Amino acid sequence: MDRKTLAIVGASGYAGGEFLRLVLSHPYLEVKQVTSRRFAGEPVTFVHPNLRGRTNLKFIPPERLEPADILVLALPHGVLAREFERYAQLAPILIDLSADFRLKDPGLYQKYYGEHPRPELLGRFVYALPELYRDRLREADWMAGAGCNATATILGLYPLLKGGVLKPGPVFVTLLISTSAAGAEPSPASHHPERAGSLRVYKPTGHRHTAEVVENLPGRPEVHLTAIATDRVRGILMTAQAFLLDGWSERDVWQAYREAYGGEPFIRIVKQKKGVHRYPDPRFVQGTNYADIGFELEEDTGRLVVMVAIDNLVKGTAGHALQALNLRMGWPETLGLEFSGLHP
Amino acid sequence: MDRKTLAIVGASGYAGGEFLRLVLSHPYLEVKQVTSRRFAGEPVTFVHPNLRGRTNLKFIPPERLEPADILVLALPHGVLAREFERYAQLAPILIDLSADFRLKDPGLYQKYYGEHPRPELLGRFVYALPELYRDRLREADWMAGAGCNATATILGLYPLLKGGVLKPGPVFVTLLISTSAAGAEPSPASHHPERAGSLRVYKPTGHRHTAEVVENLPGRPEVHLTAIATDRVRGILMTAQAFLLDGWSERDVWQAYREAYGGEPFIRIVKQKKGVHRYPDPRFVQGTNYADIGFELEEDTGRLVVMVAIDNLVKGTAGHALQALNLRMGWPETLGLEFSGLHP
Amino acid sequence: MDRKTLAIVGASGYAGGEFLRLVLSHPYLEVKQVTSRRFAGEPVTFVHPNLRGRTNLKFIPPERLEPADILVLALPHGVLAREFERYAQLAPILIDLSADFRLKDPGLYQKYYGEHPRPELLGRFVYALPELYRDRLREADWMAGAGCNATATILGLYPLLKGGVLKPGPVFVTLLISTSAAGAEPSPASHHPERAGSLRVYKPTGHRHTAEVVENLPGRPEVHLTAIATDRVRGILMTAQAFLLDGWSERDVWQAYREAYGGEPFIRIVKQKKGVHRYPDPRFVQGTNYADIGFELEEDTGRLVVMVAIDNLVKGTAGHALQALNLRMGWPETLGLEFSGLHP
Amino acid sequence: MDRKTLAIVGASGYAGGEFLRLVLSHPYLEVKQVTSRRFAGEPVTFVHPNLRGRTNLKFIPPERLEPADILVLALPHGVLAREFERYAQLAPILIDLSADFRLKDPGLYQKYYGEHPRPELLGRFVYALPELYRDRLREADWMAGAGCNATATILGLYPLLKGGVLKPGPVFVTLLISTSAAGAEPSPASHHPERAGSLRVYKPTGHRHTAEVVENLPGRPEVHLTAIATDRVRGILMTAQAFLLDGWSERDVWQAYREAYGGEPFIRIVKQKKGVHRYPDPRFVQGTNYADIGFELEEDTGRLVVMVAIDNLVKGTAGHALQALNLRMGWPETLGLEFSGLHP
Repeated sequence: MDRKTLAIVGASGYAGGEFLRLVLSHPYLEVKQVTSRRFAGEPVTFVHPNLRGRTNLKFIPPERLEPADILVLALPHGVLAREFERYAQLAPILIDLSADFRLKDPGLYQKYYGEHPRPELLGRFVYALPELYRDRLREADWMAGAGCNATATILGLYPLLKGGVLKPGPVFVTLLISTSAAGAEPSPASHHPERAGSLRVYKPTGHRHTAEVVENLPGRPEVHLTAIATDRVRGILMTAQAFLLDGWSERDVWQAYREAYGGEPFIRIVKQKKGVHRYPDPRFVQGTNYADIGFELEEDTGRLVVMVAIDNLVKGTAGHALQALNLRMGWPETLGLEFSGLHP
Repeated sequence: MDRKTLAIVGASGYAGGEFLRLVLSHPYLEVKQVTSRRFAGEPVTFVHPNLRGRTNLKFIPPERLEPADILVLALPHGVLAREFERYAQLAPILIDLSADFRLKDPGLYQKYYGEHPRPELLGRFVYALPELYRDRLREADWMAGAGCNATATILGLYPLLKGGVLKPGPVFVTLLISTSAAGAEPSPASHHPERAGSLRVYKPTGHRHTAEVVENLPGRPEVHLTAIATDRVRGILMTAQAFLLDGWSERDVWQAYREAYGGEPFIRIVKQKKGVHRYPDPRFVQGTNYADIGFELEEDTGRLVVMVAIDNLVKGTAGHALQALNLRMGWPETLGLEFSGLHP
Repeated sequence: MDRKTLAIVGASGYAGGEFLRLVLSHPYLEVKQVTSRRFAGEPVTFVHPNLRGRTNLKFIPPERLEPADILVLALPHGVLAREFERYAQLAPILIDLSADFRLKDPGLYQKYYGEHPRPELLGRFVYALPELYRDRLREADWMAGAGCNATATILGLYPLLKGGVLKPGPVFVTLLISTSAAGAEPSPASHHPERAGSLRVYKPTGHRHTAEVVENLPGRPEVHLTAIATDRVRGILMTAQAFLLDGWSERDVWQAYREAYGGEPFIRIVKQKKGVHRYPDPRFVQGTNYADIGFELEEDTGRLVVMVAIDNLVKGTAGHALQALNLRMGWPETLGLEFSGLHP
Repeated sequence: MDRKTLAIVGASGYAGGEFLRLVLSHPYLEVKQVTSRRFAGEPVTFVHPNLRGRTNLKFIPPERLEPADILVLALPHGVLAREFERYAQLAPILIDLSADFRLKDPGLYQKYYGEHPRPELLGRFVYALPELYRDRLREADWMAGAGCNATATILGLYPLLKGGVLKPGPVFVTLLISTSAAGAEPSPASHHPERAGSLRVYKPTGHRHTAEVVENLPGRPEVHLTAIATDRVRGILMTAQAFLLDGWSERDVWQAYREAYGGEPFIRIVKQKKGVHRYPDPRFVQGTNYADIGFELEEDTGRLVVMVAIDNLVKGTAGHALQALNLRMGWPETLGLEFSGLHP
């Protein structure tokens, strides 16, 4: 098969770099260009030392981009929306990893991000979560990668809301996140001696990904996010707490997950009764596209605790986007996403 | 002043070892004996290398304990209850760091721990949290140290429930805990290659400390605990989520905390508007007896997020117990608890 | 092509588990059986949660092993030597990951390990480092995996000794090692609260891998190993210090490495002049079969510092063994070893 | 006793902040002013959250400094040398924590730092290591704090060179250092996602502290430093390797250390024969002024491995400087330096 050509805009960052890593082992994709204004002229391995021996690509400035079959955009939020035409004319297929086109509702966008410069384009991108939108993604030319925290939250809650097993009422979500989520740019907050060993509350309230979560879950539930940064480099552990409908049991929860995710290649329902690894742990999905999902029911109160572990840069960002691209191209969904994770 | 003599039963563990560390720099206390069955005959520095140069004490087996002014018990849960008379006759003042006598309600004990062998003694110990029971502790001969997770949760919620600022309804508590909480005994779960880098859900539901929390908070609120172990060695970050009464504001929350904790020497209300360190972080209370408390209100929903950071072995265990002992003896409350923590 | 069948003895440990992980993505190998006495009957994912969704294999007790094309032995040191016939009859190709058959010289074995039960078999196994013994490995039926620290040390020093660029005299090697090196068995030394955050000198003198290093380096040089355990879970950073022959320069060192490793698929010479990642770092080879090698010359003293970073469980254990097996079978050397490592 | 007044220039950095932490619990010292150009006007707790509840000091710009009894200078290297008069007139006692006045030999300074702007002042400061220069420090008005890596190296080697137990020849020193050593200023190298989990060679050759080491060790030995940064925030583990004189034994090494450090309050010789904590480990001196020193002799080769663990910011910087100040003032040497470290 002829390889399709691909370019990555903003490849020195963590999302773009991760997409690059995945695509370099993809049999049908060929990376032609990668851009970075700051590192233009340097080999990509100057920034991403893991790719030594894998590629001789050098960063180019974005002005030197040439047309390609697929354009992956890993720009800071807001840039693509402002410069949309410039990028849209370069490739028929666009994958945006920023927040610019994730939402459909301009009001929600406004509440969390401010005025959108191109509101008429909202809704033109397909939200790139295969577990929710597989059919639409097969025909999507423009795809918007989901937020990493939104991915974990949606994947954990979607079957419960679709299956109607929860009591109406607020769902409380606590997200344990990682330092790569803040991006590749140094800052006083990311200075290692300040950051290492910390458990730093990041967003107790008002997290932007709330908008995506609400928009993509059936029935627009009342979901409250609290995000706390650990000092892991990668990974998200999402826990959600809500009450089960009276009379419903653990079996019904199982049933809901099985119905929603029965054939999903990257969802693993984790429910051992014993053992050290009986709940999902982001450590063991590091580098992979898996979402490990578990849950536990408090019998006497009906409180259900759902747990989801993902790698924020893979399943949370570049991985689901590549999975979506595979769908769009009619390729096997798992291409480039085969890594199994490490133990220990 | 004559020093009071003190013995620590179970001093090779983390709670007993921490009490020992604190007491070695206390001006009015003298440690006469420390027990450890397993390490009997070894110097305490064999187990606690931080104490090199501070003490020449050696562990003795518990059978060789002699009378002292104060006996500190850091035994596995259940042992003291079973062997109560043996220890009670050794000293007029007892400080128990286990869960054996923390609760008053035998029903609650039964639910979380099983049958209590000496239920008639429940209620005879004063719960050793100075912020709640300062006056009673001044006259207490028998004191029961609070659970570390209970300490963090109670200290965060007590002013809100006392001040009546919360809407009735469930309070959702997420506890990020540390590996020292599981004690000094090796196990497959604590094996470093398995444990390091993990975010391991420890108790999604049914946490035993729920009993203490409920019993010590005004009005016995419905509190739901979910405990997740990070790979920090020490420290707890508690976050609690609940709704404020309609019409109440951040000012009212402030007021509640000020009223409850105005003169407390070890409570620090953290509420900067900006900066890297604007929320409580267990890293910066490590080794100290401080509880750092913060909160944030989501204006449009009324959701209040409370955050508490403590060191589980100090404020969460040995520190509040020593603070209680200082109260009992009529000494300044902060003796032996002066360490300020480190940055970075 | 027909898949070759393979069994792994001791697959619940870290070396065996890593071989299993690699082989599960190998196109020409099929794992038929994996043994673990302790976990017999449990699915391998009970121990290795990273393999969820990848295999339904369950551990069997070693007694139930059946013949296979290839047998991989990941037993504690000494077991294979004692029970050799039992295992040798099960498969024509044996790969031993223990220290039992790494050495040729019975005197060296005796010095570091004690009496060898089957000294006549020493020398019958080929030391499974492809960079040194590629040709022999193509015809080897019995292969002995190298020690992880020996691998790092040998790969760093071999070109220098072969090229004759070093002054005669002692070479000082400092090995920064990881906690997985001590295996999967819990112990007081591996208890997380004791181990995390430590820099623990492990073997200041007398390291057993000295024997392998001396035996496999040209001229049997005087090499002194000091091993220090960091709290990384995986990875080795080896630094070696020695003096260059008078009059020789950095160019000569380059030349020596190029000559030795010109076409090696898994050796990467790292020598950037600037940048954060200008020296080898075990973090960026984690999970991979790469050995990253760098060096720096102190011009005014002639002191050369060599640096090697590997993953102790991959290039240091299971990876070079699989690479050797690929050679033996006439397959492409990199099969099953394609993972590129992560950044960040 | 009347408290002496003290001001700290550059107190938002890690060295200055640590001096501040120590002095806040010193009974005879009163901090009057602390400077920071960047954070002028902010409370010191904005930067140093550990000091909440301990001080209400705010940073002032250096221009607003007023005379004090003692001035502590924690400025970037070079600043004090250039602006010497301005600071020297403010206080009779100066403690400089930079490298500006550590050396006596202008040639050595030139080699490692470049031209010194005030070479005539070199040699006017006393090098503030009490273990070497206790008598001189009792009368010193100007003191130069030692480099952290130099402190660890000198403390480990001084008794051996003074005692004459080493064979002439090179001494190889490997320093495992921490991220706080690079200071409080964010940089690409210190960005947490890049730094965490790394073992990053920092200075394989040419380390500046070599100059101090050579100048302060008897006989100006040939010492080679290689520095590797772990991802600990604090702490140094120094290992040195050299050969013992023929015929000398472990007893002689003991003797040398005892003679040099017999009454030292902050030196602890660690030499257990067994146990998890039988070698020095920087983790257990964190926050303390201790230097833990151990050694091991390889009998058959005569190679001696010396190990020293210190906290780079305490014994390596602020702690030995405060110890020196206590000496200068005629106070007990240990004032303000009482913290014992934590376990676990």
